[in-house]
Amino acid sequence: MSEFRQDPVSGQWVIVAPERAARPTDFPVVRRQRKGGFCPFCEGNESRTPPEITAIRAKGSLPNQPGWRTRVVPNRFPALQMTAKTSVDMDGVLGRRMVGFGTHEVIVECPEHLSSTSEMTPAAVRDVLLTYQQRLLALRCDSRLAYAVIFKNVGAAAGASLEHSHSQLVATPVVPRVMREELAGATRFAEDKGDCVFCSMIVGESTSGERLVHMTKSFVTIAPYASRFPFETWILPRQHCASYEEQPPETFGELASAMCKLIREMDIALDSPAYNYIIHTAPFADKSATAYHWHIEVIPRTTRIAGFEWGTGFCINPVPPERAAQLLRSGSGGAQATMSDQEGSR
Amino acid sequence: MSEFRQDPVSGQWVIVAPERAARPTDFPVVRRQRKGGFCPFCEGNESRTPPEITAIRAKGSLPNQPGWRTRVVPNRFPALQMTAKTSVDMDGVLGRRMVGFGTHEVIVECPEHLSSTSEMTPAAVRDVLLTYQQRLLALRCDSRLAYAVIFKNVGAAAGASLEHSHSQLVATPVVPRVMREELAGATRFAEDKGDCVFCSMIVGESTSGERLVHMTKSFVTIAPYASRFPFETWILPRQHCASYEEQPPETFGELASAMCKLIREMDIALDSPAYNYIIHTAPFADKSATAYHWHIEVIPRTTRIAGFEWGTGFCINPVPPERAAQLLRSGSGGAQATMSDQEGSR
Repeated sequence: MSEFRQDPVSGQWVIVAPERAARPTDFPVVRRQRKGGFCPFCEGNESRTPPEITAIRAKGSLPNQPGWRTRVVPNRFPALQMTAKTSVDMDGVLGRRMVGFGTHEVIVECPEHLSSTSEMTPAAVRDVLLTYQQRLLALRCDSRLAYAVIFKNVGAAAGASLEHSHSQLVATPVVPRVMREELAGATRFAEDKGDCVFCSMIVGESTSGERLVHMTKSFVTIAPYASRFPFETWILPRQHCASYEEQPPETFGELASAMCKLIREMDIALDSPAYNYIIHTAPFADKSATAYHWHIEVIPRTTRIAGFEWGTGFCINPVPPERAAQLLRSGSGGAQATMSDQEGSR
Repeated sequence: MSEFRQDPVSGQWVIVAPERAARPTDFPVVRRQRKGGFCPFCEGNESRTPPEITAIRAKGSLPNQPGWRTRVVPNRFPALQMTAKTSVDMDGVLGRRMVGFGTHEVIVECPEHLSSTSEMTPAAVRDVLLTYQQRLLALRCDSRLAYAVIFKNVGAAAGASLEHSHSQLVATPVVPRVMREELAGATRFAEDKGDCVFCSMIVGESTSGERLVHMTKSFVTIAPYASRFPFETWILPRQHCASYEEQPPETFGELASAMCKLIREMDIALDSPAYNYIIHTAPFADKSATAYHWHIEVIPRTTRIAGFEWGTGFCINPVPPERAAQLLRSGSGGAQATMSDQEGSR
């Protein structure tokens, strides 16, 4: 029998319907794939990207030359640009519009042609996590920006147009809807209960253990109670911290290990799926955001998102998070079917 | 230069970024595909579905026998079932849960093995629209149900597991998030302006014509101002009407023609894309829902929805709705790239 579950933060209801996984197309895993060809992100090809914004690089090496460990460059096809000031115009009753002000950066994660966090060393991933923090600390000084989202698409089916391991940062003058809703939910919970909803969740999940994937000194990995997608997994700092920028940098080595471990387990359980991860963090200048608790959400591309989900906000998840956590912990396969994410390929 | 646009109903911001369509993978159209094989929905195979709930059929023909024009059957793998009463349990601080109460029906749209509304006659589509209305009128008598969503997935990439033209109906004891948000937005607008936001939109779009695809006596087809997806298109009744159940049935012939026309134009512009449509209608028993205005949203599968969009609620749309409306009106192709929705196929 299926059940409805409501996320305590967003208030969103999810239908957990394990019997639906019996349908052959309900749970296809979309695998990552190697494409090959020229890569503008590989070391030595620095001239093939726009000039770098920042980099972690060897002492004495020059900008836009080899010798870097991570490299931040403007997106060549930016969704937003820092070229004009933000102001809202009404377009009659039809809605509001404003110029596409903001920034769209690419974080090239490693000099070698690797394609997934699971192929990288924890030390390399730690550099990436530090780079994220540097960029957030720099961008939050611009009072015209309200939010910056950092996300990673791995595999064409997850939206990656280049294979070389990279993340993206989009900073906007408005707070994205999902973050507004989560912040509102966290604030409501804090007012009602005098506690952080995420901290409560961490305590609850650590005690029950049912949906716990791992725990280290500073981080916990869980399959959330109202998982929207099969194998959706969150990594949260155990110590309350509203924003990623405030996370003590000395914990990033531990976080990097937790991320590598989780994504390697997903690779085993789901046969190297395409995936996304997104850093959920508090808005830049919101005083009430202390109720928030930053975390990383990892979503393997196991289902085709249908118009129904977009049109209603209702997710039907055929894999209970208890089962997903168990499969990730045990490192055994859970997928009924796999498909490739490239046309005409195996 | 890109721009932000805010939907006047949901308040959702969209980034309209036409320059991003220069990226080769930003705008792949996912085509529909013929699979063949045995079909449980074809006339003569009635015994291969669960027994029918209702049907439009020739006088004298028997239930679960040939002679029908549309046929409603329970989903063989239902996400929800009418087996238990609804009650909410707390699961500690982790969230709320309740049993998966509700209904999940399939509307088989025609006896022949057709796969898209664009292949059906307007007369056949009219029968489908009447069937939708009959089911909503029947289900809203059950006070345990708060909402029923009707949607159609066409093509594997849009979530269809069977090719034969069919829609689905999911009735739930809670109102889906997207509908709650739209209703709240419409109510706010009505309180502020004393008018229906959709009626105002229809007047504005009819006057401007920029995003108008067609208009008939009773219906208007537009590419909405803050379109989230390339070629997203809405069909709305011109006369204010909150819920689909209340729409005068004699207008369904006209609506069927508008739907066939629109989807045939999408077939030309986007080379027979996979697509979804969703009926957005008022909740069953909500008195304040008179501010709502039912409509159909049609979304061709032209982009891969990435975790970023799911994770933030932010859509980046590379095709301005003005351009989409123009291409649909002119019946000319707009896609830069096409891909198949089946592994290993052309």
